[in-house]
Amino acid sequence: MHELQVILDAVRPVDRSLEPEIRAHLDHLTKPPGSLGVLEDVVTRYCLITRTTRPRLPKKRIITFAGDHGVTAEGVSAYPSEVTPQMVRNMLAGGAAVNVLARHVGADLQVIDIGVADPLEDAPGLVRRKVRAGTANLSRGPAMSEEVAVEAIQVGAELAHAAAGAGITLLGTGEMGIGNTTPSSALLAALIPCPVAEVTGRGTGINDHALQLKIRTIERGLEVNAQRLSNPLGTLAALGGLEIAGICGLVLGAAACGLPVVVDGFISSAGALVAMLLNEKVADYLFFSHCSAEAGHRTFFRRLGIHPMLDLNMRLGEGTGAALAMVLIEASVKIYNEMATFGSAGVSGKR
Amino acid sequence: MHELQVILDAVRPVDRSLEPEIRAHLDHLTKPPGSLGVLEDVVTRYCLITRTTRPRLPKKRIITFAGDHGVTAEGVSAYPSEVTPQMVRNMLAGGAAVNVLARHVGADLQVIDIGVADPLEDAPGLVRRKVRAGTANLSRGPAMSEEVAVEAIQVGAELAHAAAGAGITLLGTGEMGIGNTTPSSALLAALIPCPVAEVTGRGTGINDHALQLKIRTIERGLEVNAQRLSNPLGTLAALGGLEIAGICGLVLGAAACGLPVVVDGFISSAGALVAMLLNEKVADYLFFSHCSAEAGHRTFFRRLGIHPMLDLNMRLGEGTGAALAMVLIEASVKIYNEMATFGSAGVSGKR
Repeated sequence: MHELQVILDAVRPVDRSLEPEIRAHLDHLTKPPGSLGVLEDVVTRYCLITRTTRPRLPKKRIITFAGDHGVTAEGVSAYPSEVTPQMVRNMLAGGAAVNVLARHVGADLQVIDIGVADPLEDAPGLVRRKVRAGTANLSRGPAMSEEVAVEAIQVGAELAHAAAGAGITLLGTGEMGIGNTTPSSALLAALIPCPVAEVTGRGTGINDHALQLKIRTIERGLEVNAQRLSNPLGTLAALGGLEIAGICGLVLGAAACGLPVVVDGFISSAGALVAMLLNEKVADYLFFSHCSAEAGHRTFFRRLGIHPMLDLNMRLGEGTGAALAMVLIEASVKIYNEMATFGSAGVSGKR
Repeated sequence: MHELQVILDAVRPVDRSLEPEIRAHLDHLTKPPGSLGVLEDVVTRYCLITRTTRPRLPKKRIITFAGDHGVTAEGVSAYPSEVTPQMVRNMLAGGAAVNVLARHVGADLQVIDIGVADPLEDAPGLVRRKVRAGTANLSRGPAMSEEVAVEAIQVGAELAHAAAGAGITLLGTGEMGIGNTTPSSALLAALIPCPVAEVTGRGTGINDHALQLKIRTIERGLEVNAQRLSNPLGTLAALGGLEIAGICGLVLGAAACGLPVVVDGFISSAGALVAMLLNEKVADYLFFSHCSAEAGHRTFFRRLGIHPMLDLNMRLGEGTGAALAMVLIEASVKIYNEMATFGSAGVSGKR
């Protein structure tokens, strides 16, 4: 579709010509070359994405998309769908985990209604970009049409552009949506591709019986939607969620603006995967924050050959992992900017 | 020895009776039970160590011990020994990696001369607690006497007590000492125990030839000191370093004061291991910050059944890993204190 193509065409590959200068600076700092490991790799990528050898401290924003899922009618979640709007209100009041961690790392937080079933009246601070009041049941047919999926992608992309316009230099993804590990697992199974059972876990904490039901529900969804899974957009529409499409759009929009994006957890990874399949150049702009405890996330990383920054047995989403990774990215920029060099500090080099 | 026994006798086991109340509070917060993984475990331990169900934000200090090593005469390091005092001065001037990261996480930093060969004249800000001007060559005899090792342990313990007196509530270890992966590997080989080659790595970046030399040097050290390795103190004295003994003492003193301690990297782990073998109760007070890229650290954690918080391919020491872990510990305390509960936020619980 034309609107999507415009977004995809705006993504340029990262220019790697600055890398030798960046690495040379890191090697002049008073430490053995490479001894700060991931921090050195992170700041190198941060510099390349932001096209500078003199990075500035990031101005950070986490964007958390909320949406509901028709597939919850199958009994795939441990919590009722009413928790989605309740948690949105909790985030607007500052009481959710992502609020605490965003404050901790100095990131601002935007909460987006991109697809909550509840009208969410009287919700001060909510960014109202509702595309639909939830998806249809992916195990009985497509979760949404491709047109709706593109609308949600556009919302995400516009939020990235607005962030860039507001001076944000580091974005993080987040989500809230009861039932949303089900579409995420379905997307991974279809797009990696791999067996459903390999990428399906207990989400917020379902028992063995519900886990088997969840796997069968996803398998049925892959069957009934089989004709729609021939390309990433069709797959996103058939199996995805509105918040997952929003994350996909945020990632695409950020890459188009030259903004680095921190990908939160399991659900955000599903959105990022769709974005990378729509335009492989997007991968250059992503920092994968952490490996979730949700079964399937480790498979995702292994299959894609990606090493996430953190592995803290977390499985909450919301943007909590993105927040924690942001503090490491900021640390890496400070290392680059603030450490003395061997020359300036009068420290002898390697023999 | 009496002085050491006094320190060891002051360590009490952590009282676990508060754990059910702490876990119950975490389960009332607006998230699925256990979904913040390591953060929940960390704040639970932090509460138990500090004997409260209402933890306060940590007041943080990193204590970096500097010392020199006679074994560098064998050619086991990529950098000359003169780098030890040069890096001490760099730290005092604020230009080392640990300075940057300590500032980043809001920790103060103390740099201790516990065993630098250089007199370090005109070094403003240096904490002067030199026990000896470096150790003897551990491959030719004992690195130090047991009396000297106890003196260095006492220095560390006194610094822990002084920190507690100054209102510090979270300590981190750090070190600087050219050559100090060699005594650390020797200590691990002798104390785990395990083959030298399994816990010996490239330190600041030696080549294959020097690595083989380093392994043989350590093996010779274990042989010539064989009679001294029958207990943890004798082993520390024969194979250790003054800064490693200082770290051991800091850990013991912190445990005695009821202060949580963040153990930095490979060298700090060697000091912490001696402390844990001197008094197993010490383990309750430790947070292992990260798995170093130094070969042997992964073996250490596997053999001891410990899961460090971070795995960032870092191998710098100084306290850099401890600083990064502190920001996660602080995050966990904020999660505990600042998140809304299901009741207060009007969020429905699990079905």
